[in-house]
Order: sequence, then C-alpha cells, then structure tokens
Amino acid sequence: MNDSDKFPTAILGASGYIGQHFARLLARHPTFAPPILVGGERSQGQRLEELWQLTEEPPRELARERLRRLSPAQLQRAGVRIVFGAFPSGLAGPVETECRRRGIHVFTNAADHRMDPDVPLLVPEVNAAHLRALTAGSHRRALLVTNPNCTATGLVLALAPVWSLLSPKVVHVTTYQALSGAGLPGIASLSITDNVIPYIPHEEEKVAAESNRILGIVRNGRIVPDRVPFLANCARVAVRDGHLEAVTVEARRHPSVADLRQAWTDFDPLRDLKLPTAPHPPVELRSQPDRPQPSRDRWAGQPERARGMAAVVGRIRWNPPYLRFFVLSHNAVRGGAGESVLNAELADALGLLPRGRTNAS
Amino acid sequence: MNDSDKFPTAILGASGYIGQHFARLLARHPTFAPPILVGGERSQGQRLEELWQLTEEPPRELARERLRRLSPAQLQRAGVRIVFGAFPSGLAGPVETECRRRGIHVFTNAADHRMDPDVPLLVPEVNAAHLRALTAGSHRRALLVTNPNCTATGLVLALAPVWSLLSPKVVHVTTYQALSGAGLPGIASLSITDNVIPYIPHEEEKVAAESNRILGIVRNGRIVPDRVPFLANCARVAVRDGHLEAVTVEARRHPSVADLRQAWTDFDPLRDLKLPTAPHPPVELRSQPDRPQPSRDRWAGQPERARGMAAVVGRIRWNPPYLRFFVLSHNAVRGGAGESVLNAELADALGLLPRGRTNAS
Amino acid sequence: MNDSDKFPTAILGASGYIGQHFARLLARHPTFAPPILVGGERSQGQRLEELWQLTEEPPRELARERLRRLSPAQLQRAGVRIVFGAFPSGLAGPVETECRRRGIHVFTNAADHRMDPDVPLLVPEVNAAHLRALTAGSHRRALLVTNPNCTATGLVLALAPVWSLLSPKVVHVTTYQALSGAGLPGIASLSITDNVIPYIPHEEEKVAAESNRILGIVRNGRIVPDRVPFLANCARVAVRDGHLEAVTVEARRHPSVADLRQAWTDFDPLRDLKLPTAPHPPVELRSQPDRPQPSRDRWAGQPERARGMAAVVGRIRWNPPYLRFFVLSHNAVRGGAGESVLNAELADALGLLPRGRTNAS
Amino acid sequence: MNDSDKFPTAILGASGYIGQHFARLLARHPTFAPPILVGGERSQGQRLEELWQLTEEPPRELARERLRRLSPAQLQRAGVRIVFGAFPSGLAGPVETECRRRGIHVFTNAADHRMDPDVPLLVPEVNAAHLRALTAGSHRRALLVTNPNCTATGLVLALAPVWSLLSPKVVHVTTYQALSGAGLPGIASLSITDNVIPYIPHEEEKVAAESNRILGIVRNGRIVPDRVPFLANCARVAVRDGHLEAVTVEARRHPSVADLRQAWTDFDPLRDLKLPTAPHPPVELRSQPDRPQPSRDRWAGQPERARGMAAVVGRIRWNPPYLRFFVLSHNAVRGGAGESVLNAELADALGLLPRGRTNAS
Repeated sequence: MNDSDKFPTAILGASGYIGQHFARLLARHPTFAPPILVGGERSQGQRLEELWQLTEEPPRELARERLRRLSPAQLQRAGVRIVFGAFPSGLAGPVETECRRRGIHVFTNAADHRMDPDVPLLVPEVNAAHLRALTAGSHRRALLVTNPNCTATGLVLALAPVWSLLSPKVVHVTTYQALSGAGLPGIASLSITDNVIPYIPHEEEKVAAESNRILGIVRNGRIVPDRVPFLANCARVAVRDGHLEAVTVEARRHPSVADLRQAWTDFDPLRDLKLPTAPHPPVELRSQPDRPQPSRDRWAGQPERARGMAAVVGRIRWNPPYLRFFVLSHNAVRGGAGESVLNAELADALGLLPRGRTNAS
Repeated sequence: MNDSDKFPTAILGASGYIGQHFARLLARHPTFAPPILVGGERSQGQRLEELWQLTEEPPRELARERLRRLSPAQLQRAGVRIVFGAFPSGLAGPVETECRRRGIHVFTNAADHRMDPDVPLLVPEVNAAHLRALTAGSHRRALLVTNPNCTATGLVLALAPVWSLLSPKVVHVTTYQALSGAGLPGIASLSITDNVIPYIPHEEEKVAAESNRILGIVRNGRIVPDRVPFLANCARVAVRDGHLEAVTVEARRHPSVADLRQAWTDFDPLRDLKLPTAPHPPVELRSQPDRPQPSRDRWAGQPERARGMAAVVGRIRWNPPYLRFFVLSHNAVRGGAGESVLNAELADALGLLPRGRTNAS
Repeated sequence: MNDSDKFPTAILGASGYIGQHFARLLARHPTFAPPILVGGERSQGQRLEELWQLTEEPPRELARERLRRLSPAQLQRAGVRIVFGAFPSGLAGPVETECRRRGIHVFTNAADHRMDPDVPLLVPEVNAAHLRALTAGSHRRALLVTNPNCTATGLVLALAPVWSLLSPKVVHVTTYQALSGAGLPGIASLSITDNVIPYIPHEEEKVAAESNRILGIVRNGRIVPDRVPFLANCARVAVRDGHLEAVTVEARRHPSVADLRQAWTDFDPLRDLKLPTAPHPPVELRSQPDRPQPSRDRWAGQPERARGMAAVVGRIRWNPPYLRFFVLSHNAVRGGAGESVLNAELADALGLLPRGRTNAS
Repeated sequence: MNDSDKFPTAILGASGYIGQHFARLLARHPTFAPPILVGGERSQGQRLEELWQLTEEPPRELARERLRRLSPAQLQRAGVRIVFGAFPSGLAGPVETECRRRGIHVFTNAADHRMDPDVPLLVPEVNAAHLRALTAGSHRRALLVTNPNCTATGLVLALAPVWSLLSPKVVHVTTYQALSGAGLPGIASLSITDNVIPYIPHEEEKVAAESNRILGIVRNGRIVPDRVPFLANCARVAVRDGHLEAVTVEARRHPSVADLRQAWTDFDPLRDLKLPTAPHPPVELRSQPDRPQPSRDRWAGQPERARGMAAVVGRIRWNPPYLRFFVLSHNAVRGGAGESVLNAELADALGLLPRGRTNAS
C-alpha cells in the first residue's frame, strides 16, 4: 500500500514518552500513514530527534519532522482521519472530544474518557465485543477508543484466559512499575536510585475500576463491569521499562493446573484477523523459575512488529483456592502506544473505519 | 563495665555480610566483649578491614584483627561464653550444636535450627514467651536461640501489634528484597541492573513457616505454631539494604482504623527492660503517602544504638475485611545481626546467661 | 553557648538540596544559631520536613519550621547577621548583593559572585590568605564569601598539598559526578539509569577558571589567578552523592613519591584554629587499590561534625612527568553547604565577624 | 549458501558473556556454519538456553544445543575448521595453540597470545596490514588471530582516522566501563550499586601496550609498535554494556577541526570488502552535546548485522595542542565477539582461509 492509500494520521502529544512510541510504531505502518506530529506550547517547532528520549534511534522517516501546534479544526482541514492520543490526561479530554466531533477517529492513551459509558476501554484480545457493542448504532460517528492504564493492561491480559475457569472472588496485585510509566521527565533520579517508592497517585484505584470494566459483559448494548475486588499495592522501582506484577487470585472454581496452562497456551482470539501489531500468542508462558524479568522479557511478542506487545506469565503456583503468578508487560508499548495502535487495527478489521470521506457530526 | 567484666564472645563467620554487621554492633557493646573473629578456610588470616564490605568504615577496635579458624573446642578453651552465628546455613548447624554441647551460648542467624522444637525462633517484642517457655527446664544447659529469616522478621513485627485485633484469616505478602539479603558476593550486577528478579529460592516457604511459628502460642511448655496461610511472592530489587513488603491481611475482626493505629503506636513490650539494642518504639508509623522507602527508612530506630532495628509501617488502607500496608525493615540489622544481638540481650535480662563459670553439658 | 549568644542566621533557598544540607549542618551549630528558612514562591509556607529530600531524617530542631519568603530588608529587621546562600545561580546574585548592602554577611554556594575581583572564592585550607587580603581594608563592610563549584573544591583540596612540589604544567581531570550535583529535581531517572551522561553544561569551564583563581596568589591586595590549563571532561553517573575525579598532572618538578605522600599526610593548615566543621586531616589517603569509592568514602572526615568534609585520595601513580590519582569528595557537603559553613567559621576565627551591632553600609 | 558449504566452527567457552555473543552472531552467519558449543567442566551437558545471560533471547538455532567438553583433537576429528575463542585468559592459551597445531584457525578474545610477535592483534579497519604481513610466509599454517582488550578496541578505532593528522605526543584516556566487561558472574551488585569502582586489574597497562601495538607499523614483516604514552585511568560504572572513554590527545600537528571531522567521516577502509559484520561507517559522529551515551549508542552500527560494531564519537573540543572527545563502543560486541567474527571475515576475504582440506602442521 502506498502511503497515499493509507489513513492520514496524527499524534497528539508527540513529545512525550508514549508519543514517541507512537512515532516509532507508525513510521512504517502498513495501513496508517506516517503521522503529523502535534506538540504543545513548549515542544512546537522542535524536531522530533531533538526531543527524542527512547534508547532506540528515532525513526528516520520522522526524525527531522517538526512538532506543530494544531487545533482539531486544523487537523480536520489537513485531512487527518485518525489521531493517536498521548496528551496528558486532563488536557487530552476536550481536544479528543473536539476531534471526534469533527469526524476524526480517536485512539488514545489518555485517561479522561476511559470511564465514559459509550467509550470502549479496549484490549482487543479481551473485550473486542465491547468495541462492537458500543459502535453498533453509530455508523456515522467517528470513533473514540481508549486503552487502559499500563498496569491494568498486562493484568487483564494475564487474567482473561483463565477468568471463567477460576471465577475469581478477589484479585490481589502488587506491582513493580517501571520509571517510564511516569512519562517525561518523570521520576527524579535522586528519588529512586537505591530505592523503591511504594506509592503511585490514583494507580490502585484505576487498576481496580478499569480491570473490572474491561472484564465486564455486554448487556443490552451496554457494558456491565465485573465486580471483583482488585486489591492493589502499587510501587515504583528502578527499572526503565516493563511493569512486573505479582498476582494472587482467590478462586471459586478449582481447575487443574494443566487446564490453567492449557487455557493460557491456547489463548489467541485474534489469530485469524492478521492485525499487524497483534502478538501471537498474546500471553507467553515462561517455565524458568525466575521469570518473567523486566530486562529480559519486556520486548516479548512475535512477529517483529509486535515486539513488546505480549504479556509474559511465569512462576505459576496453584494452591486452591489461591492461584499465584507473576506477569510482565511493556508499559509503554502493550500498556500504551502499541495498545492504541492495535485498537485502531482492530477497528479497521471490523470495518469501523470506512475509507470513504470523513464523517463530521 | 570493663571489657574484662563483659561476656567473652565470638562471631562465627565474620567475613560475611551478617558477620560484619555483628562486628559493627559488638565492637563497643555495653555487656558483650569485643568478639573473636572466626572465619573459614578462605578468610582465615585476613584482617577484618581487608574483607570489609559495608559502606560504613570497619570499627576501629576490630579493623586490624585477623580472622581465625577455631573449632568449638578451641573457642571453649579460649573462654568464649557466647557465639553469634553467621555461618552459611548447612555449614552452621553442626558447629552450633557442638558449641552448645560445650556450654557456649549460641545466638544465630543461620536457618539450620530454626524449626527445632526446643529452639526458640525469637523476635523479642513478639514472642519473648517462647524463650522463657523453652528454657524453663534447662537451667544447666547453654542456650541456642535463632533469629528468623530477614523477611519474616519485619513482617511479624508489623503484624504482632494488630494480630489479635484482626484475627487474620489469610496474610498476603509481596516483597521488594534488598541485594544484601543474598549475602556476599550475592547477586551479580548484570542480573539486577535495570531489572527485578521475581524469585528467591525457598524464601516464600520460610516466610510462611517461620511467621506462624513466631506468632504461635505456648502450650504445656511447647510452641504451637499458628496456622494462618501466608501467601508470599518474593522478589529481589536493585536496592542495597532494606526489605520492603506489601502486606494484605484478610481479617476476621473489624476494628476501627484508629484502634489499629493505636495498637501500633502503643506497642513497646520491652520498654522497661532497657535492652541496649532495642528500638523504642519498635514499629514506627509514617504518615507521608509515599513511605516507607528503603533509602530513607532503613536506618529507623531510636536510640542511636538501635538504628536499623525498627520496622517502619506506612500506607495503611483498611477496607474490611482487607487491611493493606507496607512495612520496611533493615534486613541485615533487624532481620539479621541486630536481631541476634537483641535476642542475647533479652536472654541476659531474663537471667538466662548467668555470669558464673561455663556450663558444659 | 546559648542560642541567644550565637549569630542569628538564615538560609536563602532552604528547599533545595544544598539548602537542606545547610539546615542539617546549622541545626545544632556551636556558634551559629538555628537558621530562619527562606524559600521562594513555591516553597513558602511549607514545613521543612515536607520538602525534605535527604536520606537522613530532617533535624528535629527545624523539621516543623515553615519556609518564609523574606526580603533582605525583612531579614535585616529580623536581626539576621549571616545568610547562607543556596538560591539558584542567577536568582541569587542580586539578593546577596542587597543582603550585604544591608550589613548581613553572606556565605554562599551560588556562582554569581565567584569571579568578582573583591569577593573571596574560598577553600579555607587552600587560600585563607585570599580572605585576609580581600577583607583587609573593609572593616566596616559586611562580608560576601563564595564557595567554589563542587568539582573544583575536591580537586583543589587534593592538589594544594602537592602544588608547589610539582609545579604543574597541565592538569587533566575527568569526572564521575553524582546526581545530587544537579540539585532538585535534577536528573530524570530515565536519563541516567543504566547510563552515563558525558556532559554537564558550563562545568568544564568553571573547573578551570575557579581552580586557577583559588590556587592564585595575592599581590598588592588582589588575587592573581594561576594560569595552568585545566583540561576537564565532566560526566554524570548514577551515584547519589560524591564526585569522583581522575586527575593526571603533568609536572615540571619531579619529587619522590614518598615526598608526595608526605606532603598530603602533613597537610592540615587549619589544625590550630579548631574550626567546628574543619576535617583533620582535610585530605585522607587510601592505600587499598580500589579506593576512593563514592559509596564508601563520601562521608569521610573527622571529627563527627566534619563528616563529608574530607577529600579522599587514592590510586597514586607517579610516572614523571605524569602524576595520576583519583580524588573523591562529597559534592553537597565539602563541595557545597559544608564548605560555606566552614568559610564562615574561618571568618569568625579571623575576627571578621565582630559580635557587635550590624554594619549596614 | 547452505550450512554445509559454510566453514564448520566451534565456540570455545560458550557459557560466558563473550561466548554467548559469539553464539548470537554465528547462529545465522552467511559464511560460518552454526557453531559447536564447547564448555568447561561446570557447563558441559547444559543447554545454551539454561546458561543464557544476555537480555536478548538465545538464537533459536542454538538454544537447545548442549555444551560439550571437547579437546582440540576431538574438534579436529569433528571437522571443525575455525574456533572462536572465549575461554578465560590463562586457560585459553594452550588450547588455542593446540587447535592451531591441528590445523584449526583460531580467532580469539583471550589475552594470552595478544603480544606474541607472530600473532596479529587485529582491528580490521585499523591494521589489516598486520594480518597480511604476519601471514605472508605461512600459507600452510592455520591462523591464530587475537582481538584486543575491549577498552583498547574502541579507543584505537576512534584514534585511527586522526592519528597521522595529529601525530600524538601523549594520549590520556579515562574510562567508564560497563559491568559486562568483567564477564560472568562479574561484579557483585552490592559493590557497584550507587557506586563507581576506580580500579580494574591490569586494564591500564593493557590499554597502553595493545593500543601501541595495533597502531604500529610493519617493517620487514614484523610489527613495530608505536611508542606513544597512553596514560589510562580505568573505572567501572553501573552500566550493563558499552564502554565510554574520555580521551585527550596532546598533538604535535594542528589540523583544523573541519579536517578532523572530515577524517572521521571519510574513514571506511573496508568499504569495498563487503564483510558481513563490518559497520559502515565504523566511526559514527554525534553532534548532540550530550552524546555518546551507553544506553543510547551501544548498539550503533549499520547494517543490521553490524549493530554494536561502530564506535561513536562526540563532544569534540579542539584547543591545540589538546584534542578532547568521548568515544563509546559496545565492549562485548565491537570489543569482543563481534571483533573476532569480523577478523575471521577479513581473513576469509583476503583468501587466508582456503576452503580445501584442513592444514594440520
């Protein structure tokens, strides 16, 4: 596909850590054209390479592009069909609403709209049905789709394959969260060197609310969240990327450990959709006793384009009614930019992004 | 007290991390004389300062002392009354047994005898009664007293003040354990830089078994362990010292949060014994939302001699039946050498270390 | 001495890293009274303990004091006789000038006035003569004394004892600078974890200019800087505190290595002044092959009050004409707050801080 | 080329850090067949994946291969034509000699033979002439080629393009060396967390001797080392991979800075040989003020197969006669396994590895 046949796109907030991962993932995407880079007051006019903070080199296609301060109206006039949202929460909400009003599809990492009743909070392998349900009656409207908090994403990916097998009564989760989860500039080095910070504002509440929403069912075209208590303890550790989580599920049902492993191994609901950024399998099991580890497993995911998109599960211990395991996922890829790109790919595969003219409301 | 009036002591395994903390704590102790330094094959003949790995300078009184390879018989002949045990588990057991047989009191960090029915596994603020019970009928025998695993020590200190108030049904604990918990040379830097290792061999089992033993009751002169499931997830993080633990208690009783705080604040059962190394209070509460932290709270404990001996509790969240909090304690001090020194001080205060001649069996 | 007999003091910029070290050092100082804490717009009204970032606990005497936004005029009215300067460079200059104009002595870590011809850039063991020379004719004026850049301070302390013995032709210095040298919030953790940053703005120039000024001679009441090229390479490493520097001196003279060691060992020009914060000796030599190290040597300095004030020199290699060694000093103590406190103590010992009424110009 | 047409190879010491990089580089090499994995007493019988320590996954082709303890005679009988050496220095020497005697070509990272007069110490872009000279008269003999110390390799790569332009009088180099330079298990985490260790045994001497040898000229078929003093200060920092070096050259000639930059930019002497692992360009210049950095630049090198093979130079400051810059190179790739693979590729390109039957002496 030529770039001219691809969807014109933009990144809202290309100067941030998630924004830069969007740039990396979209520079050579098979169906989304290289994005316009939208920045804020401070970053406008600067080249992407000047702001670059990832350890990988900036993508050559975009490195010398300058960030521009563009309104939704200007994006609409520029023909942008899809925006990927990486503005800070709070700032993001109104801009995303306005983009949508102007017929631009929004796939966003910002938290503002995650709990809106008509907005899917999407992890494609887990709740693609939510996307279908919430878009069933709105053919003419642009989409607004959110991805969850970076901690909730890995957690629900690990839980989804075994959720109905276990029928959880309570989920305990304690986290070892990476520095990049705090964005840029993020955590001061003096605060975290030789240290752990056992507090991340609002994180524990988000994990609980978002996980239940994602694992909820569709009834009468609405999402009915699950109501399992998620008891979270969230802490920051001196790791660059990759959120590790210790999970203990108190279960109502007691399958065999072989059944649990089989459920994880067989899990690949998107297998046939051939989404470019989808990992196969989405959950990788590790048999070594000391895995998953952030430095070794953060880039898990096959094929190449899906690197960093798999959740890695290990140290499974099953003492009914308690199942314990660790899960790791790349917070900025599976738990951020990659997730929203995958969400857009799913929407496209489901025919929700018609290629015709834009649909301003 | 002159050194000549103090108990003659020795450190078994003075070359290791715990052994060096013993040296630091015993160099100028009010009732225990500066120790003879016992080493193994590799360390014998070297000066303490040559082996020194702590960031503090070695104590001047001992820095130039050489490690000696001495048998229990030689220690007995040298007049040693108390040995502090820091030999590696496995190696330690028989040596400790032989010391005791020869009338030398043993206070040890090694795991070998922790589960022996007649050996106290002691945290003085929590189960001083165990020491009394297990020594009631053995006036003429030398003592063998163990301190718990470094993770269990901080955990039971935090739980003890609220244990009967809560009547726990289950205790969930997930750890952020420091590098020094693995001793010397310990964890390779390539394994842990920018990483977390979610596995510490045998640790989760020890935490469960030892915590229940410490919290057990005395019946007919025997220890009856408690039977609360302790579900542990143990991981190593890139922190030098200080084990942080995220604890969730599922409780049968539901006191008010004020009662819980009061119980922690009032807790100081050793107040009147005036043990030199006892911290007052033994559990410090932090009100800041992001505490306890290893780099800031590891040396908690008043007075000066008790630095590193207090457990620090923070982030208390009480959603009955679930109580959540974080606790931090210095793994090598409260969870190691300091604990055994305190155990010996308690034994002395209870009159279990008579100052007369030695009591070889 | 009662606090009421001590000099009334204030800290300009008590919310920063250097400011907090000033608070730590001045809370119980024998001749300076506990300071008023001056903050800026953001920090005013907050308690010191709320802003505290050092790993040690805040001093009890000051922990609950609130930062106040006070002008030099208000400080004068409050009877303050000495301010210790920790405002950011740029902001600091005019405030310090105004304090001095109002008769308040200024001892500052800020860079603004370091190169003023009439302002001493002082390291007491090295150039106390500068202080005498520049204050000779100004009995009636308040003092303004600066301490050098944190890298230059350790460097000149190490060089001073051997400077005339070697008659250096060139000094090469390459640094491993600690995170705290960048103040608060300082270096982002994502920038430095598993990394080195080989650039610190303006640092290399400051090291060269300031070192030559400090090592300069007094002629006709003026400072004539030395003119030795200092070729610096400055880099930031993932260390909390303590600047390590690799120094290579190309020398014109070739003393024996024994003479060099003797010169370092004998160096203690302030021995007789009994300044409270002066370390004796000011330069400590380490004989181990792998020292000095930041984590072990940063707090060098005897007696207790002078901890962190000694420079530690090791790995001396002398292949004439090239002398190589490493030096370490605590950047925030010897290279910051402690240095200015020592400067004030020297001024007092020299009778430059008369105890009578203030001397507004 | 089918694997059957490629050179049969083996790795001596596949369990170590350099050995694992050899495995990574040779698993799918265009001219060298997947290697036999030779281990020592402890590693024999284990699968490569069980020993794996790199953060990248082990190559699928070799992951499940077991390490074997094989003598040179057994390797000869197995038809091995080339061994890549990663045994520890000391152990390596005699085995390499014996391999060569049996007609097996040796390309090794071990230090034992680096200074043998008839053995090339090779960095192909710098001294390919040494390989030609030392093999001119030995058509019938197997090759033994060494790669330099990891610190010397990056240094000479950076210096070679400007060496004759500058005609150096002295080279000062101070290093920030990565953890992996110490191999496995390497540096203890307690030794380096929040620390720098300013000492690496024998490193400073090796840098001096090896750099001069590599930069030496060929005269009458022999290598005449250069005689420039290399004054090194070598230190270890808490970085996983990538040696950073601060270099100051005192020069006899004073070209323009433009000429220096041009010399670096134009440098690519292997351009036409199309060696698979050769980076083009071999020296990359960075214009940003804060580069090179280990975490961002360690994997420099184009094309894909040459990742980690380029040296990255930045912060060029030219104040005649002193040129200062920083250089970074991946110590385990360019400074280890990758270097020896490139050496073998060069030998092959020069026709020194005839494809016929083996040439036992």
